[in-house]
Amino acid sequence: MNANPKFLESTATVDEAAVQPLPMSRKVYIEGSRPDIQVPMREISQSDTPTGMGGDKNPPFFVYDTSGPYTDPNVKIDIRSGLTPLRETWIAQRNDTILLDGPSSAYGIERMNDAKLAELRFNLKRKPRVAKAGANVSQMHYAKKGIITPEMEYIAIRENQNREWMLANQPAQITKQHPGQSFGANIQSFMTPEFVRDEIARGRAVIPMNINHPEIEPMIIGRNFLVKINANIGNSAVSSSIAEEVEKMTWATRWGGDTVMDLSTGKHIHETREWIIRNSPVPIGTVPIYQALEKVDGKAEDLTWEIFRDTLIEQAEQGVDYFTIHAGVLLRYIPMTANRMTGIVSRGGSIMAKWCLAHHKESFLYTHFEDICEIMKAYDVTFSLGDGLRPGSGFDANDEAQLGELKTLGELTKVAWKHDVQTMIEGPGHVPMHLIKENMDLQLKYCHEAPFYTLGPLTTDIAPGYDHITSAIGAAMIGWYGTAMLCYVTPKEHLGLPDKNDVKDGIMAYKIAAHAADLAKGHPGAQMRDNALSKARFEFRWDDQFNLGLDPDKAREFHDETLPQEGAKLAHFCSMCGPHFCSMKISQDVRDFAKAQGVSEADALQKGMEVKAIEFVKKGSEVYHKM
Amino acid sequence: MNANPKFLESTATVDEAAVQPLPMSRKVYIEGSRPDIQVPMREISQSDTPTGMGGDKNPPFFVYDTSGPYTDPNVKIDIRSGLTPLRETWIAQRNDTILLDGPSSAYGIERMNDAKLAELRFNLKRKPRVAKAGANVSQMHYAKKGIITPEMEYIAIRENQNREWMLANQPAQITKQHPGQSFGANIQSFMTPEFVRDEIARGRAVIPMNINHPEIEPMIIGRNFLVKINANIGNSAVSSSIAEEVEKMTWATRWGGDTVMDLSTGKHIHETREWIIRNSPVPIGTVPIYQALEKVDGKAEDLTWEIFRDTLIEQAEQGVDYFTIHAGVLLRYIPMTANRMTGIVSRGGSIMAKWCLAHHKESFLYTHFEDICEIMKAYDVTFSLGDGLRPGSGFDANDEAQLGELKTLGELTKVAWKHDVQTMIEGPGHVPMHLIKENMDLQLKYCHEAPFYTLGPLTTDIAPGYDHITSAIGAAMIGWYGTAMLCYVTPKEHLGLPDKNDVKDGIMAYKIAAHAADLAKGHPGAQMRDNALSKARFEFRWDDQFNLGLDPDKAREFHDETLPQEGAKLAHFCSMCGPHFCSMKISQDVRDFAKAQGVSEADALQKGMEVKAIEFVKKGSEVYHKM
Repeated sequence: MNANPKFLESTATVDEAAVQPLPMSRKVYIEGSRPDIQVPMREISQSDTPTGMGGDKNPPFFVYDTSGPYTDPNVKIDIRSGLTPLRETWIAQRNDTILLDGPSSAYGIERMNDAKLAELRFNLKRKPRVAKAGANVSQMHYAKKGIITPEMEYIAIRENQNREWMLANQPAQITKQHPGQSFGANIQSFMTPEFVRDEIARGRAVIPMNINHPEIEPMIIGRNFLVKINANIGNSAVSSSIAEEVEKMTWATRWGGDTVMDLSTGKHIHETREWIIRNSPVPIGTVPIYQALEKVDGKAEDLTWEIFRDTLIEQAEQGVDYFTIHAGVLLRYIPMTANRMTGIVSRGGSIMAKWCLAHHKESFLYTHFEDICEIMKAYDVTFSLGDGLRPGSGFDANDEAQLGELKTLGELTKVAWKHDVQTMIEGPGHVPMHLIKENMDLQLKYCHEAPFYTLGPLTTDIAPGYDHITSAIGAAMIGWYGTAMLCYVTPKEHLGLPDKNDVKDGIMAYKIAAHAADLAKGHPGAQMRDNALSKARFEFRWDDQFNLGLDPDKAREFHDETLPQEGAKLAHFCSMCGPHFCSMKISQDVRDFAKAQGVSEADALQKGMEVKAIEFVKKGSEVYHKM
Repeated sequence: MNANPKFLESTATVDEAAVQPLPMSRKVYIEGSRPDIQVPMREISQSDTPTGMGGDKNPPFFVYDTSGPYTDPNVKIDIRSGLTPLRETWIAQRNDTILLDGPSSAYGIERMNDAKLAELRFNLKRKPRVAKAGANVSQMHYAKKGIITPEMEYIAIRENQNREWMLANQPAQITKQHPGQSFGANIQSFMTPEFVRDEIARGRAVIPMNINHPEIEPMIIGRNFLVKINANIGNSAVSSSIAEEVEKMTWATRWGGDTVMDLSTGKHIHETREWIIRNSPVPIGTVPIYQALEKVDGKAEDLTWEIFRDTLIEQAEQGVDYFTIHAGVLLRYIPMTANRMTGIVSRGGSIMAKWCLAHHKESFLYTHFEDICEIMKAYDVTFSLGDGLRPGSGFDANDEAQLGELKTLGELTKVAWKHDVQTMIEGPGHVPMHLIKENMDLQLKYCHEAPFYTLGPLTTDIAPGYDHITSAIGAAMIGWYGTAMLCYVTPKEHLGLPDKNDVKDGIMAYKIAAHAADLAKGHPGAQMRDNALSKARFEFRWDDQFNLGLDPDKAREFHDETLPQEGAKLAHFCSMCGPHFCSMKISQDVRDFAKAQGVSEADALQKGMEVKAIEFVKKGSEVYHKM
């Protein structure tokens, strides 16, 4: 751990390359019903179609943007001050919270008063907030009362942005829907603030937003919305520093991370977390039992409800948006893991299993579950009910331990909802393809449609070093079947902690999985991006193809390896086939010919193709003679 | 193109790093019913389980090995001489072929007599072989006559190797089969030479093996066998040399490529191909129309049946094992592509479309299809009926052009089978997840269960630079649904030609997809590798975990980035959590405890867990106190 003054220097400035807007992109904001609802999106400019191919004006394309103010050149980023607390007014106006003088957890107070930590500490001047006595400040609570909060309206606008573009630009293509897709052709009916409210009230979606994380740009996790992805970051005793973790967070959100989990297990996790939250435009999740374990020097059997409770309050007052709580690890499930190929692989799960065996009692997470609900609703922290008994190998998938725990998580969901606490359910892990749908279907059934949040799943165990791929396969499939958020897996899974490159590789694999799922579900806004990129590809608009993709930098770099000249990006060919031999080019000839001759009608061939064939040869059967 | 003497120098030696055996691996051979049937496999040694975890002897594990003699230290590799012609005797003994004096194609003769090419030419002393007049030398022909060839027996042994290990070592786990898996629990019933023969006779599997490629190690492509992968290599006018292409081939097979397609379009494709075939232990496929087009200077409308026919003979006499032939691009389908998002994206398809439009005739590939069959059966070249109208974007997937062509390919399959010519069917391309199963089901129906051979499919178009991942998702799924061979896609797809690194990345993504499909189909031999690796992982046998994986080098490199010391590979923890905090470790404690106390029985909790809990705490609830 770096605890010298250099730490602050290194975090006081951000990596310039990481905060530039993406190529040909600019941040735009859509205003809601009040001027302080400003929903960000990224506008990507496109060039015109070449004249010979129709000369279309290609309108700018808008994409969902998770990168926060970092990519807005009009915002001055100073990570020592943190981000602007956008939601502060909304929270205050609800008039159901009070400001505390300072942290109320024993640990939070201790850390604040430790002079040695002064130079490590983020200097937050704002006071922590908590619900007034007896109040419930969860978004689910408002939703059930029929209140549409500014957060809900913000989300409705945010989820709709591709639709607006589509309606304006390509209405004809909306109708190409296939049977079996879960979204209707008419997406308009549900992407309203009222629909958002209703999904939250029914528990089918969550918006993780602690009242102590007002810097957040509201987002939603639910299977009737765009599939989201989470990026795990966090140091361990062995590696990494606070500065690196903050950088990983901004890097992860730049490339599309919808939420970030801080899984740090080192010495200064309290301080690291504060820096991350104050600078994060996306929800931050944690696994509080990790920190609680640090407080008892790693001895699981020494954990107590009191220590855990204090940890929840400590983190809730910092602004953690969702807590992973492994409350479903019951005594009776533990022996079921003994004959597994890989036992218990969840860190939280194994800690609780050890505690349960040592004390021969159900865990305090289970016995104090309603007490935990009381804390959650006082800060609007969302439950992410952890799957402590998830399979650690394909062989163990969907076994009795896993499915027993899943049922218990479903029972706990009902308890949480009784308290109007937002809840999602974590899922595996390692699941071969043929068992993925069963897992998803059982989750929906046992957990009453609470959002599912899965780690992958990995579809095979035999590729250490490539688990972003083994798991992107499973993630895409389970996303299609109904998972609301996919926790990424990086190439370093099972081998080490991810560095910045691994974080990006993990994000990319998961953006692909989430988007493939959106497409398969029939999300019209998703299809539009594929169409825009494919049109650019077909028309040899190389730069547009790069810029509409998930990673313009990488696409450009790969293209330039073989054809580096700027002129090649205007060429009607590429390095795969060379200038005289290009299927896209020939295909364009066919299209031009068909258009000119009107042969696009189904009965064209009956109308005398002979004549047309002669004309085609006469006029020289090549449209682009010169490069 | 490199045409100077340095070319030979550079190809005369092989990259030493690329021909070393993989870590802790050695090549072993299983002998068949005659001593010249020697089936290779890779034996991976394992270390023992640590004493505290049971001290198991972990037997060596065997995996299917595509790398040929390159990884056998007992074989001297000299790529100027090529590989040993293993099948020469088998072919000769059938006594249905004759040796020609030299190439019989006009082009082959011309190249042979061109003195300028002398230094580029592979010096093959063996004469080309062709069927005796009226004879049919296809494996399908033998199969239909009830003959089990040595090639078929070789394949039965090769496909079975994991089963042998499994039966010897983990019989209990064979029984863990899930409903809906297409393989039965008893794999023994079909992995026999007779089963191989029957599948080939029925057309459900092909073994691409030209009689002029005796260097090949026989392999099979069919959905009742392990899913195979193909790697495309090949230069274009813009980049690459012969030496690089040979190196890519050996590199691709080292990492698991089951077949290789040479898609070269440059000037010396005849010579490049010869070098590749003579050094390839796996089947080589080509798209002959590419070379035919070169012969008419890129003018599709100038192509003729005569030029194409000569090209087929030229390539068949060199030893190409399968030909992609786009014979299903019919006139009536072409106008159906005019309103597509991305028209015709297959190179072969667009060439034929252009020819058809220019001449207003059905293509010579279609009208001369039976003539082509005559050539195929004289050399045992396998058809890979090309999908010239495959979709180039998700939007175009499963449209009338694609499905119309697929039906025609089914009709042509019947024609090919009438001639006992082995046939597989190529498939897309770009297909979103929800349309993949439909595509597979229609292929089986329209094409009478001929093996399907798909390119991906890519499940989204928005990730140029990552299309090995967008397509590995689709490939895994379609493999599960029944595709027999998956054509890889590299990260350079749509952007440039793959280099060596891209080839490896593509191979890895596709080995994952193929293996995930084998698992989902319920192949017990496949599951065993996951089990062996997972057991090693759980027991902290780091080196075994790396070595049992698809890429030991990458896994070790990633692990060593954080914990480089050799001792760390014996440690019972890793860099993710650090020494005091490891779920696998805690889980092992739980298992040991459960075992010691007999709580693995379902009713254990009723038998008085209190007593056991006290004992657990007393004896110190940690098994591994020291690292």
